[in-house]
Amino acid sequence: MATIKLASSLQPLVGFGLWKVPNADAADTVYNALKAGYRLLDAAADYGNEKECGQGLARAIKDGVVTREEVFLVSKLWNTNHAYEHVKPACEKSLKDWGVDYFDLYLIHFPVSLAYVDPKERYPPAWWDATGPGGKVTLSKDPMSATWKAMEELREAGLAKSIGISNCSGSLIVDLLRSAKHKPEVLQIEHHPYLTQEPLIKFAKEIGLAITAYSSFGPQSFLELEHAGALDTPSLLEHPTIKAIADAHSKSPAQVLLRWSTQRGIAVIPKSNNPERAKQNLEHVNFDLTEDEIKQISALNKNLRFNNPADIHPELAIFA
Amino acid sequence: MATIKLASSLQPLVGFGLWKVPNADAADTVYNALKAGYRLLDAAADYGNEKECGQGLARAIKDGVVTREEVFLVSKLWNTNHAYEHVKPACEKSLKDWGVDYFDLYLIHFPVSLAYVDPKERYPPAWWDATGPGGKVTLSKDPMSATWKAMEELREAGLAKSIGISNCSGSLIVDLLRSAKHKPEVLQIEHHPYLTQEPLIKFAKEIGLAITAYSSFGPQSFLELEHAGALDTPSLLEHPTIKAIADAHSKSPAQVLLRWSTQRGIAVIPKSNNPERAKQNLEHVNFDLTEDEIKQISALNKNLRFNNPADIHPELAIFA
Repeated sequence: MATIKLASSLQPLVGFGLWKVPNADAADTVYNALKAGYRLLDAAADYGNEKECGQGLARAIKDGVVTREEVFLVSKLWNTNHAYEHVKPACEKSLKDWGVDYFDLYLIHFPVSLAYVDPKERYPPAWWDATGPGGKVTLSKDPMSATWKAMEELREAGLAKSIGISNCSGSLIVDLLRSAKHKPEVLQIEHHPYLTQEPLIKFAKEIGLAITAYSSFGPQSFLELEHAGALDTPSLLEHPTIKAIADAHSKSPAQVLLRWSTQRGIAVIPKSNNPERAKQNLEHVNFDLTEDEIKQISALNKNLRFNNPADIHPELAIFA
Repeated sequence: MATIKLASSLQPLVGFGLWKVPNADAADTVYNALKAGYRLLDAAADYGNEKECGQGLARAIKDGVVTREEVFLVSKLWNTNHAYEHVKPACEKSLKDWGVDYFDLYLIHFPVSLAYVDPKERYPPAWWDATGPGGKVTLSKDPMSATWKAMEELREAGLAKSIGISNCSGSLIVDLLRSAKHKPEVLQIEHHPYLTQEPLIKFAKEIGLAITAYSSFGPQSFLELEHAGALDTPSLLEHPTIKAIADAHSKSPAQVLLRWSTQRGIAVIPKSNNPERAKQNLEHVNFDLTEDEIKQISALNKNLRFNNPADIHPELAIFA
């Protein structure tokens, strides 16, 4: 299996993403993904399905499909738990839901700190649950350095073998590195041919920060959310450039989109409800694009981002 | 005189920029700018001409051209002085060079912390003077929060009436606001029709952060530095869109480029060695572009940035 080397471990280059997997399907989805050969599961408290996912993992371990050690399990700290004292309890809650005693990788989901929401009141809280008196999403004052310090302590305590960040840009990473004791090992970002972010990827390579791409199929991931920008954007899976390259290799457009990332050492975490497509996604690494094909795909860039907190609250312009 | 309201003061909407003014000309340049009616001078320790600029200011005050109070004086903290304990001495050195006892606005020049260089050894130190054993530009570990704390103390001590930042992006500003006691009042950024940065400008407006644009003429400012990207980019002063709009208003292309900013409340700090052009720049606010003209100009955007520290050191990807 293709992997990328982190400071603390080896991460599979291809994983299964659990965002938007309905609770009712989550246990079977995880079980089937592991059965199909996936060894990285990308979860998050925010996805609201960690308990059911954990049931699928437990069943797979019980049936001898995998051992815990064979799975690279990723989870993420939600925005309402950025205060130093809330980080460990939040991680422990996710661990308990999964029924495991460590994550292979634990990420700060967004460089966004929202008002705390007690898990007893609402779990997981959505963006809109962190509301103040005016019913508006309420920001909190925890700086990234304090949240990161608590993340470092999770690593030291063994609750997370590796720690990292998600949805962060250059200037904040440059600043975070100044106060970090343990550097982030992974940066998870939205990354597809409409949002290529070459400078950020070059920078990450420079400082030894591994990248995982989410939403590799671009607008596709956002259609079910009825995201206006995604609905208005031509599908990458049907884009003539992608289709022509797929035909030339007798591969699917999805496989070409994934290979465009993995061939450059960028991990991917596609989700598919279709077992055949899930298998195709997992096995997509058995061919190579030409340099020219990679360039053709990268040339589709239009700095088009679908997942932007500024759409939720104008003061959360983390990508401006 | 057109102004913009800061939390602590009123800032003129048009200023005179002192970047790249040769030492031999600096006193006369400042004197003539004040005589021409400029009331904002944009300086920086890094420009290496504060002593001579101060001589020009002193002469203008002595001759009754202006009083100190009538001038809005801006200076900037250099990258080698980001350690908490170096901020105040750096500001005091600039104040002494100018021969004044306060700045109207003091900015962090870049969110970049380089190894300290003793002013006795070299002043002002260039990027390349902050070198370590390998002769490579050496980064330092001072987080923005520590530098900002020292900036706040300058404001409290009256050494700077207002404090702000420059060359910062959204994610870092969002984080800085979390730990700031006094919010930055001004953000100075590269801003011209090839680099319009609408999301950052929208965000700044949202949080009450006034914007000053530098390099309003785009590549023009970088030609004398023999910047490859600037040499390869069509001049904005000769761009058909800009020229057509200038002709329609019987204005110069430079005036159109400045008005594109100031009409939206963004301050500008052009420099000109030519007295007639300096006067035209200062007086450019006496006409209005149509909404459609502003849109036409903004449509020239190509996210093209000329001033990028990542070109000096790959770990300084503050705009990635």
